[in-house]
Amino acid sequence: MSMSLEDHYPISCAFCKIADAYPPDPSSPIPTSATADPEKVDPQCHLILSTPLVLAFLDIMPISPGHILLTTRKHYRKLSDLQPNPTTKGDTTWTAAREKEEARQASRALGEWLPIVSRALCKVTGIEDWNVVQNNGERAAQVVPHVHFHLIPRYQEGREEMRRNGRTDWGALKSWRMFGRGSREDLDDEEGKEMASALREALREEVGDGGEVKGKL
Amino acid sequence: MSMSLEDHYPISCAFCKIADAYPPDPSSPIPTSATADPEKVDPQCHLILSTPLVLAFLDIMPISPGHILLTTRKHYRKLSDLQPNPTTKGDTTWTAAREKEEARQASRALGEWLPIVSRALCKVTGIEDWNVVQNNGERAAQVVPHVHFHLIPRYQEGREEMRRNGRTDWGALKSWRMFGRGSREDLDDEEGKEMASALREALREEVGDGGEVKGKL
Repeated sequence: MSMSLEDHYPISCAFCKIADAYPPDPSSPIPTSATADPEKVDPQCHLILSTPLVLAFLDIMPISPGHILLTTRKHYRKLSDLQPNPTTKGDTTWTAAREKEEARQASRALGEWLPIVSRALCKVTGIEDWNVVQNNGERAAQVVPHVHFHLIPRYQEGREEMRRNGRTDWGALKSWRMFGRGSREDLDDEEGKEMASALREALREEVGDGGEVKGKL
Repeated sequence: MSMSLEDHYPISCAFCKIADAYPPDPSSPIPTSATADPEKVDPQCHLILSTPLVLAFLDIMPISPGHILLTTRKHYRKLSDLQPNPTTKGDTTWTAAREKEEARQASRALGEWLPIVSRALCKVTGIEDWNVVQNNGERAAQVVPHVHFHLIPRYQEGREEMRRNGRTDWGALKSWRMFGRGSREDLDDEEGKEMASALREALREEVGDGGEVKGKL
């Protein structure tokens, strides 16, 4: 794949703007209500996690309440970009080595935070079932070209709908259908603020006190 | 959530059987055609990755050709189980500490291998677009209760179907619908063998020589 200027300076990328607006706080991966001020970007961002490597915030067009995005701080387009191209393997420059290690650390951080953010999501929303979805490319319904995982709660209502229809996957189907269709509703800013605040509190409990936080990516 | 005997000794778990049948080889994370003999389990397993922490193999009911599953070697039911319950935080025994660190390393390994396996998948199938999906719980279409990520290629055909229908997500919708419906076709063992062999070769190229392999989780 050829590189464009945009790949190096993705100034129009919505997630890069969020990453710029919310720099990591060395004292904690979980922002405070002050540092997470939603109005630092437009549209508002309801931030729940901000580390040197990854960020998490509410999807502004949630498939269901509590729909979270976990993304890398640095701009990578697809998941495959988190591993440097083999053609650069011969490149022994300091820059190539640093970029390779940076990508590896980012991929590990995504893996490490997915369970932690999942636990906070379950606790706050009361759900026990959820999907994690990461789309690569237009044909896979990727909208923002900056690698990210969706965490999508599956509520009890889904089950009720399933029962009514006598099928086993109606709830899931309904939501999948929404990807890329524009039928998802905009997140209400007040609801987003409340949800994000509760998620940050749950995340703080998950990662524990300062001593434990320091070990996290 | 209460624990059952099955949580501790999931002898009937299909993925635990695969993990048992294919122990990690200290010399490489990528099995050889001999160590990856598909007939070590029934139904056949087309293994492409086997580390102390994670395994990857072809889905026996692929949504599209090359559909891969990446799973943990140890039995965890949902993604949230990769982070020990906060109630065990006060537990300072050696066992609790070890289990906690084991879960953290497994989650990092999943994150680290997702991009690498993705790159091998793109190379072998020629696709540029794919979905990564991880389902937690029955309402989220989780079938095997052992945490795993699906890597699902999106082929050009999907795009053609989209065009014909004048919609933007027909191809994606078609596949999502298949989750949990039994409308996915069984993997042909010969095709699986060829695909797995090509994927192992691509993975070997991704992880490079012995020196590089040693750094991997």
